[in-house]
This record gives sequence, structure tokens and C-alpha cells, in this order.
Amino acid sequence: MKYSIGVDFGTESGRAVLVEVETGREVATAVFPYINGVIDEVLPESNVPLEPDWALQDPEDYIRVFQNAIPRVLAQAEVQASDVIGVGIDFTACTMLPVKSDGTPLCMLPEWRAAPHAWVKLWKHHAAQPEADKINETARLMNQAWLERYGGKISSEWFFSKVLQILNEAPEIYAAADRMIEAADWVVWQLTGIETRNSCTAGYKAIWSKSEGFPPKDYFAALHPQLANVIDEKMTRDIRPIGQPAGGLSSQAAAWTGLKPGTAVAIANVDAHVSVPAATVTEPGRMVMIMGTSICHMVLGTQEQLVPGICGYVEDGILPGYFGYEAGQSCVGDHFAWFVDNCVPGEYERQAAQRGIDIHTYLEEKAATLKPGESGLLALDWWNGNRSVLVDVDLTGLLLGATLATHPEEIYRALIEATAYGTRVIVEAFQQNGVPIHELVACGGLPEKNKLLMQIYADVTGCPIKVSASSQTPALGSAMFGAVAAGKQAGGYDTIVDAARKMARLKDEIFLPIAEHQRVYDQLYAEYLRLHDYFGRGENDVMKRLKSIKVSARSG
Amino acid sequence: MKYSIGVDFGTESGRAVLVEVETGREVATAVFPYINGVIDEVLPESNVPLEPDWALQDPEDYIRVFQNAIPRVLAQAEVQASDVIGVGIDFTACTMLPVKSDGTPLCMLPEWRAAPHAWVKLWKHHAAQPEADKINETARLMNQAWLERYGGKISSEWFFSKVLQILNEAPEIYAAADRMIEAADWVVWQLTGIETRNSCTAGYKAIWSKSEGFPPKDYFAALHPQLANVIDEKMTRDIRPIGQPAGGLSSQAAAWTGLKPGTAVAIANVDAHVSVPAATVTEPGRMVMIMGTSICHMVLGTQEQLVPGICGYVEDGILPGYFGYEAGQSCVGDHFAWFVDNCVPGEYERQAAQRGIDIHTYLEEKAATLKPGESGLLALDWWNGNRSVLVDVDLTGLLLGATLATHPEEIYRALIEATAYGTRVIVEAFQQNGVPIHELVACGGLPEKNKLLMQIYADVTGCPIKVSASSQTPALGSAMFGAVAAGKQAGGYDTIVDAARKMARLKDEIFLPIAEHQRVYDQLYAEYLRLHDYFGRGENDVMKRLKSIKVSARSG
Repeated sequence: MKYSIGVDFGTESGRAVLVEVETGREVATAVFPYINGVIDEVLPESNVPLEPDWALQDPEDYIRVFQNAIPRVLAQAEVQASDVIGVGIDFTACTMLPVKSDGTPLCMLPEWRAAPHAWVKLWKHHAAQPEADKINETARLMNQAWLERYGGKISSEWFFSKVLQILNEAPEIYAAADRMIEAADWVVWQLTGIETRNSCTAGYKAIWSKSEGFPPKDYFAALHPQLANVIDEKMTRDIRPIGQPAGGLSSQAAAWTGLKPGTAVAIANVDAHVSVPAATVTEPGRMVMIMGTSICHMVLGTQEQLVPGICGYVEDGILPGYFGYEAGQSCVGDHFAWFVDNCVPGEYERQAAQRGIDIHTYLEEKAATLKPGESGLLALDWWNGNRSVLVDVDLTGLLLGATLATHPEEIYRALIEATAYGTRVIVEAFQQNGVPIHELVACGGLPEKNKLLMQIYADVTGCPIKVSASSQTPALGSAMFGAVAAGKQAGGYDTIVDAARKMARLKDEIFLPIAEHQRVYDQLYAEYLRLHDYFGRGENDVMKRLKSIKVSARSG
Repeated sequence: MKYSIGVDFGTESGRAVLVEVETGREVATAVFPYINGVIDEVLPESNVPLEPDWALQDPEDYIRVFQNAIPRVLAQAEVQASDVIGVGIDFTACTMLPVKSDGTPLCMLPEWRAAPHAWVKLWKHHAAQPEADKINETARLMNQAWLERYGGKISSEWFFSKVLQILNEAPEIYAAADRMIEAADWVVWQLTGIETRNSCTAGYKAIWSKSEGFPPKDYFAALHPQLANVIDEKMTRDIRPIGQPAGGLSSQAAAWTGLKPGTAVAIANVDAHVSVPAATVTEPGRMVMIMGTSICHMVLGTQEQLVPGICGYVEDGILPGYFGYEAGQSCVGDHFAWFVDNCVPGEYERQAAQRGIDIHTYLEEKAATLKPGESGLLALDWWNGNRSVLVDVDLTGLLLGATLATHPEEIYRALIEATAYGTRVIVEAFQQNGVPIHELVACGGLPEKNKLLMQIYADVTGCPIKVSASSQTPALGSAMFGAVAAGKQAGGYDTIVDAARKMARLKDEIFLPIAEHQRVYDQLYAEYLRLHDYFGRGENDVMKRLKSIKVSARSG
């Protein structure tokens, strides 16, 4: 029996899963919580304080995941290292760091240890908004065609926003950095001793495309004179398609993990994207939704299509041979968590506690007794802005229709419904722009926890929803890519499609749209769309004006 | 020393207050909670179930107030009955009942005891909406000029909506009723043995005016053939101006109360209206706000002005010699109560309990630390529809601007601010239509309890706000009218203006607008107005459509 290991680097921890290559059975799992977690107040050791919106990580935590979690899954499963044929990793993105030419992170060098910009910038580091604004404005002024590939807007979370922030605020760090690299690629480098760059993060986060490469030098020069040669000086134009091997495990990494030197290591990947084949999707028409605090939507297309307001599309970005389209909703699980923390009366907490169930379950039960439309409520799901298709972080939440008879579970359900309408906007944006979708496949934490939510999504979108069988889809996907990196001759697979056929599975349960619910939700969705356009497309920019009044009030 | 007694009939209880005529000092107070309270589920004794939106009362409860509360204040104060020169009463309105020609309520007769329509219909009986619709539609078709006096709309709460509902649904009760009468006038009848009708309820609730009387017979006939002669058959055209005596106390009522037979009894009045002189207001320019679960706004004018969307104006309706203008907000204290019941997390309850303060106080404390505009939130205060100036019960609440960082106290403050914007809309409607207002005088429960709210109202409206010194302003006002009914010769006063000069007082504390708050609130109010008009004046009737979807969902 042959095995592959997938390592999934999340926001708070890293997870290793040992998987049977032939069947996809998940034999053992180990989670290692990062010692320094998300660094958003002060730097470790130096206690240097961070500004608001900063979010850093410690690259040594990633190495500790290899050192701890991989030996633990081997031990748990009582598997011989020689039976492990491949390793794949996936990471949050864009999570990036400045390193020396030998791969040493600047933050690990004593002279830069107290410099915030020397550390890993986590995906949710949101302090580079001025840089993102500059990137977008400059791109529009210079008529950069690539802007359209990203729905017309580059995010403050993405690679060059973060690089430009380093250059603007800490030019000495920029100068000292021989390489600027995604953490995903950096950990693969640590495993193999070879620096590689993957097509997924390059495409989705660093404005690269297979046919056009990176933006031109004069564009980078317009952002900052010293940025002109950033690609050739600190990155590479050699972008490797996902699905390929990155190299063999180095002796050092073999010592960390207990695996054999030379074990195949896959090109790095992103947590959301690696989940697509792990959720059985290797063809167009079926959209994968990774549902957690937010939703990431992924769909494959055979043709290049401009879809307004989606996050981006990348050729070979998800699966080789396809255009991988990505969209996102920025506030889903987070929305319900906010509601539970801020809006649920003590009486409900007591009732739930008395019954020994958690408050989400209690609310779900109560909300499930309501019929569609019965609450009279309608919400816009913009508590954390809108990531697709309006791409506007300054939009805010709206709840309409409350009366003195409105109960918390009605608001809770209205918030779920609002996120479902948000998903339908995205599905329709794809459909109306030449990217067909006829089925949804869900994975992530939410589908396991909230069946009401899944049914509402089916009713609102009118699409059947299937659910990935694995509760750790990204790690399974990484293990699948590890098996592909090993290849068929070594007991793995030659392509990710072959791997998916054997290793990926769906649950039996399918959520089918209920026709009488659909009829009501069609009416409510029409109302949602009208408010969506009124508040989101400039007819009444009250949300932005309130935000600017808020900013003056706080500073005044 | 001479005394007067004011009896204030509220929604849940009746209150008697014994007042020193010379000074207005409130010497003794007694409250009698109605035994049958608000009857909204089943009838007493028969247990006949009521439909939704019904709200009835038991007229015997009113008599019990006289029998219990008046003897108690006499005893408490150790005052001789001979020193009590007058009695005044005020009532909720429109609260009405069908009675026999001797004053016996139909519901007290065994044959009608199990008939819901035989009981008192309380002001908040909301089941006569179809009748109100018919009244308004017919008035428009027949070009009834009086409709304009009520801002273009008669409420389902008002007199003829309720009468027409009786006729439509229980014609046998309509036929059996010799008189249809306001409870206010009915209790005065019980005190004096003489049926009188007051100009306040007739004007504000029963479409009467001093110059034009009631609507014509052909109008009533168009509503229902049997209603043609309702005025002459079951009411009277002899409407008595408030401020006059209704008669002397009957021997029976003297026996109930312990007062002397022949004690002067004032013409009946309404709780809100009687508060105006009790809050020192006897001239134009100063608007009285009775602030509780809802707000009633009263202002005096010297000229007849049409103010779109206000509740109504009545010559001699508040004070003899003035046009009394009334407007209303249907959801104020109720709004905060709803919020506390449905939206405040257990953690806040525990914090408040730990500090030994109530949750409203706790929220007020937290909300008071915020600056205007700092929350980024804006609400439309329509949780219970809009009573002025849109006059539309089908409007619903809106909250805009929430983010994942929004806290409960921010929402709480936004709801307070929304009700303040609602007040400003009313103030401006008066000002822009020839009814000047330069100062607000508050009374009722809220001003005592929530100083933050009072400051926000001053900041939002730009008007200074004074507060009535009495915490039981309506009862004080009724006692003042009792002293006027007695007259100067008996130790009372000849006019209510004279009585107000001696008996009414304000607190020393004045809430003055703070200029820097006003600047921010002017911006927020502009946003409120734009949403108010967008959702309230037909541009986007989403609230009504959601209500109709809700109705179908519930019935489907």
C-alpha cells in the first residue's frame, strides 16, 4: 500500500494528513497550532507594536509543522517512510515574505528581527490599501489590459500591494531582500532545497498569466522607480504549472519529517484551489464553494472569458488545461459568528445551554421552522464589504423589514439568505458571461455544520448542491498532488484527473432546490438585486459617506 | 387649602393624583391596575377567543379606578372631601364602546357578554384596517375636504373605523347600541350622570370640527347604508369645548369616591392633550412631546394650516382659542424595548447585573461614549410603521452601515438617533407649513430615564429641550382642568392658562444643542431623509412587497 501526505497551512495552524493513494482514505491526521499564531499586536521577542490592520506570521512556525505533524501521522498510522511516495502542500494566499538568496527569511536574521516588514505578511494583512489604490489607479492610467482579468481591481491582500508597502515604508528591507516569495513556494523550497514558483499564486495573486507573463517594467517603474526590475531581481519568470513535481525531499527535510530523502514534492498550491479536484471537480460546469468564515468560489472553463467583478482567472491556475475562475464572498461564517456574539439575547443562550446544544444549532433549529419570506426581512450581506462582483470594501451591511415582532432567529435566517443571494449573484455573473455552472459542490466547515444553510443555498441558486466527503478537503487535495508528483510508476498517478477519480469522493446527501421555496426566493432575490445595485453601483453612495463621516468622527 | 383630583386612564392602569390647587404640588398618588388589563387573547368569563390585532378592555375596570384610587389619595393626604373642589379625567384615545341609552355598556349585559364587539375597543385595537381603508378611499372619491385636516389619512385606530367594524362584523351589536361613545366621555358620564362629548376626541378621532361639524350623511351612507344617521342616532352634534365643566358629581359617584356630591367635574380630555398645559405650554412655538412607547407631538397655532402627513389639527382641541396640531411617532420606547428583548447578548446582561444596573442604563452608558457618526450606522425608525409624515403602517425598519466590528451599543444608539431624525422630520413639516416651533418640551417616561436620548434629540433637531417637572403630567393636567371646572369663585381658576401659570412647572435642567454634534447630525439627517423618501414615497416599495410576500408565506 502506498501513501501520500498533504500538508495544509491555515491561518492558525498547519495540518498533515496521511492518505492511502489507491482509495483516498484518510488514515491519520495531525494538527500543529502555530506557536506565534497571527501576529497582529506586537512582534515576538522585541515586542515592537504593530499598526492597525497588520497581520504577520513567523516562518519558523511553518517548519515546526513539518517537524511535528508529519512524524505524528507516520507514527499514528504505523506506516513506513518508504511507503510514502509523495508530499503536497497548500497554503493561505497571498501570504508572502522577504528572504535572502539562500531562503533565510529576513525576520530570522538578528539585524531585522525587530523590523515588522521583515516578517511574513499573512493574507489578511490589510495595511497595504494605499498601495493597492496606487496599483489600480496606475493600471487604469496606463491602460493595462491585465486589470480586466481581475475584475478591474487588485486587492490590498495581493502580492504587489504587499511588496510595494515594504518598499514604501521600509526601503532598507526591500533592498536587503534577495527574493520576495509566497510562503507556499517558500515551504516547498524548504522541503526540496530548490526555489520554485507555482502558477496558482503567481496567476491569482501576482498578476502573472501563462500567455502574457507579468506586467511590463515601465508599469512597475511607474509604481516606484526601484520596483522596475522586481521580477528579474527578486522573483523569476520561470513559473511552474501546478501538478508538476518541485523536486525530491532534501536530507535536511527528511531529517525533520522522518520521510525518505528524495520523496517527491509537488509544486506549491493554494488551500482553496487545491480543494477543487479533492471535491471531485475536474471539469467545467460544477462550481466548488469553499465555505468557512468566507466563501471562495472556483469554476473551470475551457475558454477565456471576462467576467466583471470576479476575483480573477488564471490559465492552469486550478487544473492544467483549464482557465480557473475564482470569485469570493468576504463575510459568511464570520457573519453568523458576529451575529451570535453581538445580537443573541441571554435567554436564547440559556435555552441552548439547558438543551446542551450550541447557540448556532439552537438558532438553526428555530430558523428552520420559518418558511421562505415569512420573516419579511431582507439583508445585504456586506458586513465585510463586497468581494465579488462589486469589489468594494467600503460597502456595509443592510437589514430591512424589521418590525416589533421580529425575532433573532428571523434575522439569523435573513443573514443566511443574504449570503445565498450573494452566491447567486456570482453564479449568474459566471453564467451570463460564458462560464456555465449547473451544480455546486461544497466543502469547508459550514456545510458540515449547517444543513439549513445548505438547503437555502440550493433553494436560492436553483442549483443542486453536493458536499465533499472529506472534512479536510485542502489537505486531501495536497496529498493528491503529492501522488501526482510521484507519478504512476512510483505507485501514484500521472495526472490530477486520474488522482481525483480514485481519491476524491462526495457525500451521499444532495441538497436539491425545492420548487415552492424557489418561487419565493426568486421574488426576494429580485428585491435583493435592486437594493444591491442601488447601494452598490453608485445610485446612493450613503454607505461610503457614512464610512467617511465615521472616519472623521473617530479622528475628530 | 383647596385640592383638585386628576384621574389618568392609561393602557394598563388608572392613576389618581391629588393636587394642591394653588401650587400644583402633587400631594398623593394612587394607581389601580386594571383587573382585566388589555384583553387580546380571550374574553373574560366566556373565554371566547379573539382574532389577531384585537385589543379590548373591561369598562368595569374604569369604575374600579374611581372606587379604589380616589379614596386612597384622600386617605393618604388626609384631606377632607369638602376641600376637593374639582375632578378632571384624561383617557387613552380613541378608546370607545357601545352602550345603552342609560350608559350601560353592552358587554355588561348578559346577552352580549360573550360578544367581542360589545366590549371596549382600546386605542391599539388594530383590526379595523379594512374599515379605515374604506373610509379613506370613500373620502377621496367624494372629495371630502376634511381629509386634509388629518394629513390625508384616517387611522384604523380612530372612532369611525372602529364603529364601522362593529357594523360590518356584528350588525346586531350596532343595532343594540343606543350610543357609541369614547371611553373618556363615558367615565365622565358615570361621574356626573350626564352624557357629554368633548371637543378633543371628537376633533382628533371622530372627524369633527368646530366650524364644519361632522362629515355629511351621504358620506356616512356611502360607507354603509345603516351608518347614514350614526351622528344623530348614536352620538350628538353638541360637542363641548374642553376647559368647561361637565356637571357635578352624582350621589352614586360620590359614594364610590368619598368625594362630595356636586363636586365640579371637567369635560373629558385625552392623556396627550391634557399634558400640554401641564407642561407649561399655553402658547404657540413650543412643541410638547409626550415620550413613552411612542411619541405624541402637540403644538398650538393661531392660524389654520394644512401640514401634510400630520395626524390632525382641531380648533379648541388642546386649548380653547387655538388650533391644536398633533403628530406622532409610533415606535420610540417600544423600539428600545424590542432591542433589549431581542438583540442584547447575554454577556451584556451579565455585566449589567454585576453592576446592579438595568440593561437600558448599561446600554445608555456604553452608547454615551460614542461620538455622533462614529458608529457608521443609520436607521429608519419604522419598526412599527410611520405615523407622521408618511402615514403608512406598512413601512418597516431599516438598519444600514453594520460591519463585523459593530457592537450592540452602536445599534442601540443608531435606533435612538433614528427616532430623533423622525422627530426632526415632524418639526420641519410644521415649520415649513406655517406652524412655528422654536423649543421642545418633553414629558412622559423616557425623558426621566434616558438623558443621552434627550441630548441626541436636542442635537438632531437643533432645538433646546425642556422637561416637565411632573412625572405624571397627564394626571396633573387633568387636576388642572378639574380646578378650572370648579372656577375661581370656588377656589380654582377661570381659565386653563391661569391654572398653568400656577400649577405647571418645568425642571431646571435644559438640553441644549451642541454645535459640533449638530454639524455631524445635519449630514446624517440628510442621509436619513434621502432613504426616508426613497423607501417611504414610492421610489422603491420593497417594504410593502416584503410584507405581502410575508402574508402569503404565512397563509401558504
